[in-house]
Amino acid sequence: MTTHYPSTIIALIKNLSRLPGIGEKTAERLAMHILKVPLKEASGLAESILKVKEKVRLCNKCFGLSDSEVCKICSDVNREQNVLCVVEQPGDLVALEKSGAFKGLYHVLQGVLSPMEGVGPDDIRIRELEKRISEERIKEVVIATGTNVEGEATACYIAEVLGILPVKVTRIASGVPIGGDLKYVDQVTLRKAMETRHVF
Amino acid sequence: MTTHYPSTIIALIKNLSRLPGIGEKTAERLAMHILKVPLKEASGLAESILKVKEKVRLCNKCFGLSDSEVCKICSDVNREQNVLCVVEQPGDLVALEKSGAFKGLYHVLQGVLSPMEGVGPDDIRIRELEKRISEERIKEVVIATGTNVEGEATACYIAEVLGILPVKVTRIASGVPIGGDLKYVDQVTLRKAMETRHVF
Repeated sequence: MTTHYPSTIIALIKNLSRLPGIGEKTAERLAMHILKVPLKEASGLAESILKVKEKVRLCNKCFGLSDSEVCKICSDVNREQNVLCVVEQPGDLVALEKSGAFKGLYHVLQGVLSPMEGVGPDDIRIRELEKRISEERIKEVVIATGTNVEGEATACYIAEVLGILPVKVTRIASGVPIGGDLKYVDQVTLRKAMETRHVF
Repeated sequence: MTTHYPSTIIALIKNLSRLPGIGEKTAERLAMHILKVPLKEASGLAESILKVKEKVRLCNKCFGLSDSEVCKICSDVNREQNVLCVVEQPGDLVALEKSGAFKGLYHVLQGVLSPMEGVGPDDIRIRELEKRISEERIKEVVIATGTNVEGEATACYIAEVLGILPVKVTRIASGVPIGGDLKYVDQVTLRKAMETRHVF
């Protein structure tokens, strides 16, 4: 350990190196940077950390990240109000938003079904999804959970549960990534792409 | 920009990405991590940032980093009290301490002479060094400034200034790094290593 610094600096280095991907060397460099910058910049960083912990909560409607009761997307009247995209985590929502591919509302499950880890349907926001579909008169639910085993299982389960409701349930497509070279694509993906081929 | 997050998260990402070597993607990942960790860990980080800015100052004696008037090294009576090692920056002091090669006291110049950037002898702590040599009855001054142009010039200047004082002035050795392969060592270093060769 770098015990050759004053104790306040050692404490900062220790706290910084708890962040993911920040080793002790990087933490040391960051601490030296923080020492050098104007007080305003450093306290701005500290305060934004505290503020995020204080303010950020889950949106009451979609369970995405929000700093108010209802998030920006849910309260945006310009978005399609009767299409819901179901994702696993807030990060997936952000990825879809960045792509600009979806203009409806989201529903963040806050997890995936995983019997191995004891996560059942009542541990993720599936009941809330059902409730929203009836209450908000949703016409289509796009299931955009991951394409790994848990994501697929969750998608299947949701499709089944929603089967009795008057709503169209769709699944985002799987296949060869755009710009991908066929010889580098794994066999399962290729098989899926072949199975779900469509008329050109 | 990742405008798809609540504004408090955007502010945190922006502040984190001001840190050196932290791009926007990494800042986003760090922000998500901070959101997930217990409040105690996040506020610990925020507080250690503020504390460093509040507490850390320059040691009254050596001008190294300290969180008290006189730093740990200067107040350590077990260290050799009459040998001073002159370094450019606090980071150099830490590097030497890590090596364990030096057991005396330090003097941090807080810079190097650089006429190009308008840094003269009165802009770095050379006067304070002269004062310490007489007051603390220093017997040897080891000049450990860098081996680049500015560092060498500063070393020469200090050696000249101290020439009139009853003190032994030495310079850390330059040469081939240990474990270094001769064919990868630059020509200037090789020439220096040859010039300063010693009896085996």
